[in-house]
Amino acid sequence: MVSDPVFLLTMGDPAGIGPEISIKALASSELSMNVVIIGDLTVLQYAAEKLGMSVCFHSMEKISDFKKNAINVLDCSIIRPDQFETGKAQKNCGEASYKYILKAIQLVLKKEATAVTTNPINKESLKMAGINYPGHTEIFAAETGSSKFSMMFYLDHIGVAHVTTHCSLRKAIDLITKDRIMNHIRLLNSAMKQLGVKKPGIAVGGLNPHAGENGLFGDEEIIHISPAISDVRKEGIDASGPYPPDTVFMRAFKGEFDGIVSMIHDHGFVALKSRNFQNGVNITIGLPIIRTSVGHGTAYDIAGKGTASPQSLITALNAAHTIYLNRNRND
Amino acid sequence: MVSDPVFLLTMGDPAGIGPEISIKALASSELSMNVVIIGDLTVLQYAAEKLGMSVCFHSMEKISDFKKNAINVLDCSIIRPDQFETGKAQKNCGEASYKYILKAIQLVLKKEATAVTTNPINKESLKMAGINYPGHTEIFAAETGSSKFSMMFYLDHIGVAHVTTHCSLRKAIDLITKDRIMNHIRLLNSAMKQLGVKKPGIAVGGLNPHAGENGLFGDEEIIHISPAISDVRKEGIDASGPYPPDTVFMRAFKGEFDGIVSMIHDHGFVALKSRNFQNGVNITIGLPIIRTSVGHGTAYDIAGKGTASPQSLITALNAAHTIYLNRNRND
Repeated sequence: MVSDPVFLLTMGDPAGIGPEISIKALASSELSMNVVIIGDLTVLQYAAEKLGMSVCFHSMEKISDFKKNAINVLDCSIIRPDQFETGKAQKNCGEASYKYILKAIQLVLKKEATAVTTNPINKESLKMAGINYPGHTEIFAAETGSSKFSMMFYLDHIGVAHVTTHCSLRKAIDLITKDRIMNHIRLLNSAMKQLGVKKPGIAVGGLNPHAGENGLFGDEEIIHISPAISDVRKEGIDASGPYPPDTVFMRAFKGEFDGIVSMIHDHGFVALKSRNFQNGVNITIGLPIIRTSVGHGTAYDIAGKGTASPQSLITALNAAHTIYLNRNRND
Repeated sequence: MVSDPVFLLTMGDPAGIGPEISIKALASSELSMNVVIIGDLTVLQYAAEKLGMSVCFHSMEKISDFKKNAINVLDCSIIRPDQFETGKAQKNCGEASYKYILKAIQLVLKKEATAVTTNPINKESLKMAGINYPGHTEIFAAETGSSKFSMMFYLDHIGVAHVTTHCSLRKAIDLITKDRIMNHIRLLNSAMKQLGVKKPGIAVGGLNPHAGENGLFGDEEIIHISPAISDVRKEGIDASGPYPPDTVFMRAFKGEFDGIVSMIHDHGFVALKSRNFQNGVNITIGLPIIRTSVGHGTAYDIAGKGTASPQSLITALNAAHTIYLNRNRND
């Protein structure tokens, strides 16, 4: 396996842009590794037809059937194009997209494949299917039994890890602890190394306005964040801060840091979405397996129209490849 | 007064870039109104000398002495260039900058002038001088006896009002109430009208990630924010939301809205600082007097070097002028 690694790509929500951008990405010349789509062949064939693209699919039953010069599909035969409506949340699409993910995780855990890159899923569709995960990250954590993980967003060579994400702001503040912050700094540091940065400079953002202004606007910086930075520095990590949340992101994108640890969802995502967010990718760090993802959603508004860009997906697949190469180099 | 209004400009911290950008702005051709600097003549003369600019100052004792074709200065004679060090926080600069502000407010309250535009002050210097205001906004509110005010940031024709600013994130959440949100929507709506927008489209951001996702991540949107929007709409204000904090700003800057009400300091300021923030201006809304300000700080790192841009100050002075014209038109 190691000499000829296979990278899995889940097809994502059949009603979203996943099928379309998968075909566009795999038909492009920007990918050099072996990719196998985990999805439904008929849905992909229908998407190619709508795109007016003549592509050669290779349907496979097991990973070892991989064939060069074709779009390899491990056909799950869960859903057909006539069974769902493009651009809409629906139960059977939620079910299908969840099953592709489970299949991909199993294959990597069984070492039949190297990494998983995921296409967008829809939370509402998942919910309709009785699957109550807020997103991919939590599914991967549950299926791989991981507790110390973090979702990293990777854009323009800068990594952003969030100490808290999908919970209320009130709960997020309660979750800001020294241990949790240290874990996220460590995870981001190790992820940036795997992405090829030798000694990552990690900026840690504050929680409060102006990073608390020496305790004037909140004390989480003094009680939790500064001690966390101080302790990871003793481990040899080049972390610094806490920096005011409203300037730390710009400083990183201007070249001062390689990564930022953001205390809350909407420090990081407000900053990221102010940039060319569509080209960014998600990387779940702290899992036993490599997982990258497109940075955008199902884009129901443009699904089936042929206008979706595969750029984020191409970057996500290439990031998985880079991580694989660096992990092997580090070993 | 009304036929020939005078716009006051406080000189700001003598050790910052205030003196320099004041001279640059008033020597430029981008201002058409009568401006009087409230500051120290010797400091301004010294700054002009360092800039190598030959400018004609007119020192005045009262506003009615205004002279065209000169840089008019109401000389407060508080501090001289040999009494402070440029680019450093110090007590006497804190004192001086505070006194310029008080003088300017008094003149407008006495109707001797029309509006105040402020140059940057330094919080540390203020503190050294025993003045414990977190910023200009609070000084103006205290001196004019205003309780329902809001600091609006104005950038690229978009206004951003913050429901909470300089307090801990925990306290900010406690401050999110329907009444407070309604006040900020009303203030922003009225400010955007004064800036020339006939029927402002006001987007209200959520507090929690994804604006709470229907109560899944916090209930402030359901309990406070949505009811506030609903009630101001009955007053005829074109408000909508709550929108996810991480996309609402980009939507506004792309033209969908004229203004955004941000629940916390670092939704708005992360978004604003990701843009050409240096050109933005502050406008305190809800005061009985017109007050605008540069969007940047004292910039001690470049003070006295001659490189500071007067752009934000020019925009701030022009915004005060526009508000004055629209207020008079509305009356």
